[in-house]
Amino acid sequence: MDIAAANTRAARAFVRGLIEAGVTDVCISPGSRSTPLTVAFAEQRAVRPWLHLDERSSAFFALGLARAKGQPVALVCTSGTAAANYLPAVVEANLSRVPLVVCTTDRPPRLRDNGAPQAIDQVKLYGTQVRWAADLPLPTNETADESRFAGYAERAVRAALGVLPGPVHMNLPFDEPLLGAPGEHPAPVAVAPAVAALSRPGVAPAAADVRAVARRLGLARWPIIIAGPETGGLPAEPIARLSAELNAPIFADPLSGLRTGPHDRSRVCDSYDALVRDVAAVSLVPGAIVRFGGPPTSKALNQYVARFPTATHIVVDLPGSYRDPLALNTQRLEGDPGLVADALAAELAGLEPAAGLAEAWMTVDARARAAMQSASAAFTEPFEGRVFVELQRALPPGATIFASNSMPVRDLDSFVVSDPKPLTFVSNRGANGIDGVTSSALGHAAAGGGPVALVIGDIAFYHDLNGLWAAKRHGLDLTIVLVNNNGGGIFHYLPQAAHDGLFEEWFGTPPDLDFRPVVEMYGGRFTLADDWATFAKGLDAARAGGLHVLELRTDRARNVAMHREAWAAAADAAWRAEAVAAP
Amino acid sequence: MDIAAANTRAARAFVRGLIEAGVTDVCISPGSRSTPLTVAFAEQRAVRPWLHLDERSSAFFALGLARAKGQPVALVCTSGTAAANYLPAVVEANLSRVPLVVCTTDRPPRLRDNGAPQAIDQVKLYGTQVRWAADLPLPTNETADESRFAGYAERAVRAALGVLPGPVHMNLPFDEPLLGAPGEHPAPVAVAPAVAALSRPGVAPAAADVRAVARRLGLARWPIIIAGPETGGLPAEPIARLSAELNAPIFADPLSGLRTGPHDRSRVCDSYDALVRDVAAVSLVPGAIVRFGGPPTSKALNQYVARFPTATHIVVDLPGSYRDPLALNTQRLEGDPGLVADALAAELAGLEPAAGLAEAWMTVDARARAAMQSASAAFTEPFEGRVFVELQRALPPGATIFASNSMPVRDLDSFVVSDPKPLTFVSNRGANGIDGVTSSALGHAAAGGGPVALVIGDIAFYHDLNGLWAAKRHGLDLTIVLVNNNGGGIFHYLPQAAHDGLFEEWFGTPPDLDFRPVVEMYGGRFTLADDWATFAKGLDAARAGGLHVLELRTDRARNVAMHREAWAAAADAAWRAEAVAAP
Repeated sequence: MDIAAANTRAARAFVRGLIEAGVTDVCISPGSRSTPLTVAFAEQRAVRPWLHLDERSSAFFALGLARAKGQPVALVCTSGTAAANYLPAVVEANLSRVPLVVCTTDRPPRLRDNGAPQAIDQVKLYGTQVRWAADLPLPTNETADESRFAGYAERAVRAALGVLPGPVHMNLPFDEPLLGAPGEHPAPVAVAPAVAALSRPGVAPAAADVRAVARRLGLARWPIIIAGPETGGLPAEPIARLSAELNAPIFADPLSGLRTGPHDRSRVCDSYDALVRDVAAVSLVPGAIVRFGGPPTSKALNQYVARFPTATHIVVDLPGSYRDPLALNTQRLEGDPGLVADALAAELAGLEPAAGLAEAWMTVDARARAAMQSASAAFTEPFEGRVFVELQRALPPGATIFASNSMPVRDLDSFVVSDPKPLTFVSNRGANGIDGVTSSALGHAAAGGGPVALVIGDIAFYHDLNGLWAAKRHGLDLTIVLVNNNGGGIFHYLPQAAHDGLFEEWFGTPPDLDFRPVVEMYGGRFTLADDWATFAKGLDAARAGGLHVLELRTDRARNVAMHREAWAAAADAAWRAEAVAAP
Repeated sequence: MDIAAANTRAARAFVRGLIEAGVTDVCISPGSRSTPLTVAFAEQRAVRPWLHLDERSSAFFALGLARAKGQPVALVCTSGTAAANYLPAVVEANLSRVPLVVCTTDRPPRLRDNGAPQAIDQVKLYGTQVRWAADLPLPTNETADESRFAGYAERAVRAALGVLPGPVHMNLPFDEPLLGAPGEHPAPVAVAPAVAALSRPGVAPAAADVRAVARRLGLARWPIIIAGPETGGLPAEPIARLSAELNAPIFADPLSGLRTGPHDRSRVCDSYDALVRDVAAVSLVPGAIVRFGGPPTSKALNQYVARFPTATHIVVDLPGSYRDPLALNTQRLEGDPGLVADALAAELAGLEPAAGLAEAWMTVDARARAAMQSASAAFTEPFEGRVFVELQRALPPGATIFASNSMPVRDLDSFVVSDPKPLTFVSNRGANGIDGVTSSALGHAAAGGGPVALVIGDIAFYHDLNGLWAAKRHGLDLTIVLVNNNGGGIFHYLPQAAHDGLFEEWFGTPPDLDFRPVVEMYGGRFTLADDWATFAKGLDAARAGGLHVLELRTDRARNVAMHREAWAAAADAAWRAEAVAAP
C-alpha cells in the first residue's frame, strides 16, 4: 500500500467532511505526525487555518472563535504532550458548551504503549470532558476511505453541535511516510464552502411540562426571572415577552445578553448584586423564580435565591446538564430557552399578572444603579469597577467586552447598566479559569464581529502571555485593559486576607512584572493610564486597530474598600432613602 | 462540625504524612480551594514551598526538581482548569518515570457536576497517566483523620516511588469555610524532617531468567550493549563490568549517564549515530544486543538494530512497562538494571569472551569522534552541534547539560564525547515534548546539584516563556543557550521540506521574536553571541549566577548541510580511511 497516498486521501476526506459540515476555521500547531491533516487543511481555501505555536493558547483561541461564530472550530496538533496542552480549553468548552472538533494525530496502534518516541496514550485523553471521543482507523487507501473519513468528520461536527454543544475528540493515527514527495503528492481538489452549515437541532419542551410550569407560575405571587450566563447569549425577545406576561423583573446577568440591546428592557434589573447584599431585599419575597441560563455570576444573588427554599424554583435548561448547585429547583423544564420562553408566554397569555413586585424592583434598581454610577464617578483614583463604566460609554454598538475571571467579571456584573446600545459581554464562565483568557479574547476578535476590549488582571494576563503571539502573527485587533494590582485581588475578599503572616506570599502573590517589554515584543502598543483622562485617550487611540494594552495600576486593598463603599451607597440609596412599597 | 478546623486538621495530617515519607519540596499555585493545603505547607519548615503562578510551568518545574533529587515532589493547585494545566507534565512524568504527588483540591461532592462555579470533573482527571488516583473523603474533624490523611500521603509517596516510579493524583475536596479566622486557627506543630525518606524497593531479576539470558549471551558471537536513556541515569559500574565480561562495546546514549564519569569507559562508544548511518556498519554483525534503559535517542541506532532481526535481542526493564517499539526482543529480563547487570556479570564470570568486535567498534568510534569534533571546530559560523562541544569543555565537573527536545537532544547525542569529567545530561524524553522545557531545567537547577546549562530552540523557548518567572521569583541560577534558528529546524530533515509552497508557513513556522525584552522582564541577562569567542565569554559571564540567556542565531538550512557534512566526514574517516578488520 502507498501509505503516503493513503494518508493524503484520508486527511483530505476528513477535511472535506468538516468543510461540508460548515467548519470554516481551524487552529493548527506545527508538528510532524499531523502533517497529512495540516497539509490537507492548508490546501483548501474554504477553511481558514490559524497557526499557533503553543497548543494551550491555540485551544483557547479556538474556543473564543467558536463561541463568537456560534459554530464548531477545528484544532490540529501532533502526537504527544501537544495534545495534553489542549485539556484546559477542552474543559472550558465542555462546561460552557462551545463546539470544538479537537483533532489529535497519533502513532499507528502498533507503536503505542511500547516506548515509541512521542507516543502517549491519547485514546480518550480528555476523559469525561468531551461529548464524543473516537480513535479513528488507519487510512487504507481504499475508495471507502473517502466516505469513511468524511463521515467521521460529519459525525464529529454533529456531536459537537448536538443537543448540548461541546468539544469532541478525534484521534487520527497516521503511519509513515506521512507525506509523498512533491512529484507524487496529488494535486488537491478544491472543496466548496458549505452551502448550508450543519446547525444544532432545537429541543422543544414537552407540552405537559410547559402546562405544569405555567400553572405554577400563574399561581405564584410575584415571580422573578433570572437570566444567567449563557454562551452566545439567551434569546432576549422571548424572555422579555415572558416577563411581560408575568410582570416579572428580569435579573439579567451581563453574560445573558439581556442587559443591553433593543429588546424590551422595562423590567430588566441590572444592580441586583448591590441590592440583594442588603437584608432589606428579603422584604420583596418572590413566590417563584424562573432561571434561564447558568447560575448567575453574582454570588450575592445566588445566596439571595437560596433564602427562599419554599418558593417555586424553575430551572430551564438543555437536556444532559444540571446546573443547580444549590439543589433548589422544584421543577425542571428541558428545552431550548427560546422555545421554552415562547411556550410559557403563550400558555400564560391573557393572564392578568399581579402588579407591584416588578415595579418595586425597578424602583430600587434605578436608585442602586444611580448610586453605583455616582460612586464610581466619584473615585478619581484608579477604581477597577469604573473600567466598565468607561468602556460601556466609549465602545461603539456591536462591540464586545470580554471580562477575565476573578474580579473583572464581577465588576462587569456590578457596573454595566441596562442600555439600548447593544454590546456583547463574554467571559470563560464554564470553569471560571484565569488561564487562556487572552487567547479566548483574541479568538473572539478573530471572528471579525466588531471591536473587542478585554479586561484582565495581571495574574491572568501573565498566565496567557503566550497568547499574544497570535495577535502579532495574525494581525488581530484587540484592546486589553490590564488591571494591574500586582497580585490576586480577589483573595482580599476571602477569610485568608486576615492572616497577615501568610497572605501576601501565598494569596496576594505579586508577580512584580513590568509588562511593557513583552507587549512590545509581540508588536503591541502599551499605554500606562494614570488617570481617567489618559485612560479615555488610550481607548480612543486603540481604535486605530492592532494590539493595544492599556494598563491601569490599582491598589488591592483600596479596591476592596472602594467596592464596599459603592455597595453601601447603593444599598442606602435603594432601601433607605425612601420606602419602597412592598407589594 | 467546625469545618475550618476539620480542613486544617486533615491538611496538616496530609502534609505531615508527606514530610514523614520524605517529601522535601512542594510547588504551589495560588487559589482559594487549595487554602487548607497551602497554609499547611507554608506553616512547615521541613518542606520547601515553591510558588508558581502558571500551573503548567509549576508541574514541569516539579518534574525537573523530582528528577534531579530522585525523590517525589508534591504539587498543589486549586479546583478547575488549574488542575488541567498539570496534564502535560503528568504525561511526561508517567513516561519518564518521575515521582510526583499531584494534589488537586476540589469542591465537596455535593457541588460537583451541577454547575457550581470553578467545579470540573477532577476525579481521575489524568486517566491512564498516573500510577494511582484517589478522590479523598471530606475531612470530618474526627481524631481518625490524623492517621487517615497521613496514611493517604504515605500511600501516595509509596505509589509514586513504586516498582515503576511515576505521578500519582490525590484529589482533595474541602468544604467552606476553608480556613478559620486568625484567632481560631490553631498554632501549627512543627513536623521534623524525615529521618529516612521512603525509598523505592528494588526489583531483583528471577534467577532462572538471568541464567537463560547469560547462556544466550555466552553463546552469541559478539554481543553489544546499548545503554539507552534513563531517568536518573543507568548504573555505570555494573554495566561496565558486564561489558568487560562480554568484551562488548557499550553504545552509550548521553541520557544513560554512561558517557562521562570515572567508570571504565574503555568500551564506551559515543559516535555510533554517525557510524551506523553508513552502510559499512552492517559488516560488524552483532550476535546479541542487550539494551538497558529506553530506546536510544539516535534514530539511526534504532534503525541499525532493526537490521538484525535474527540476533538475540534482550531488553532489560522494570516490570510494568514495555519499551520495545520495534517488537524485536527475544528475551525480556525484568528487574532493576544494576541488579540485572550484576547478576549477568556474575553468571558470565570466567567466560573467555571472543575478541575482536569491541576492538573494531572502538577503532571506528575513535576515528568518527575525531572527525566529528574536527568538523565541528572547522565550522566558524554558528553551528548548532558545536554548542555541545563548547559546553562539554567549559562546564565544571558535576554540571548538568539539559537538552531540549527536537534538535538539541540529537546534537547532544552526536557531539558529547566519552570523557572522565562527570557531567549529567538530562532531557524530557518520556514524551519528547517541547513544552515545559525551561521549567524542567529550572526545577533541575533548584535541586542545587551544581550549575545547569539548558540548550533550547526558539520554539520550545517561546512555549515555556512563563517558566522564566520562577527564575526571578526564586533567584535561581540557569544558563540558557538559546539556539535561535527562527522556527522548527527539525522539519528540515523530514519529507515536507521538499514542499516549497507549504513548508515555511506550516513547518518552518518562524516565531519572528526578539527575546531580549522578555528575558530582561524576568530579570535575566541576555547576550547575543555572534561568534564562538563571544559565546565562550558569555558562558564565562554566566558563572556569576542568576538567569543568563546566551542566544546563538543559526540558519536552519545551513545547519542541515553542516550536519550532513559532519556525518559524512565521520563515516569516511571511520569506514574508508583504513579498513577495519571485521572479526
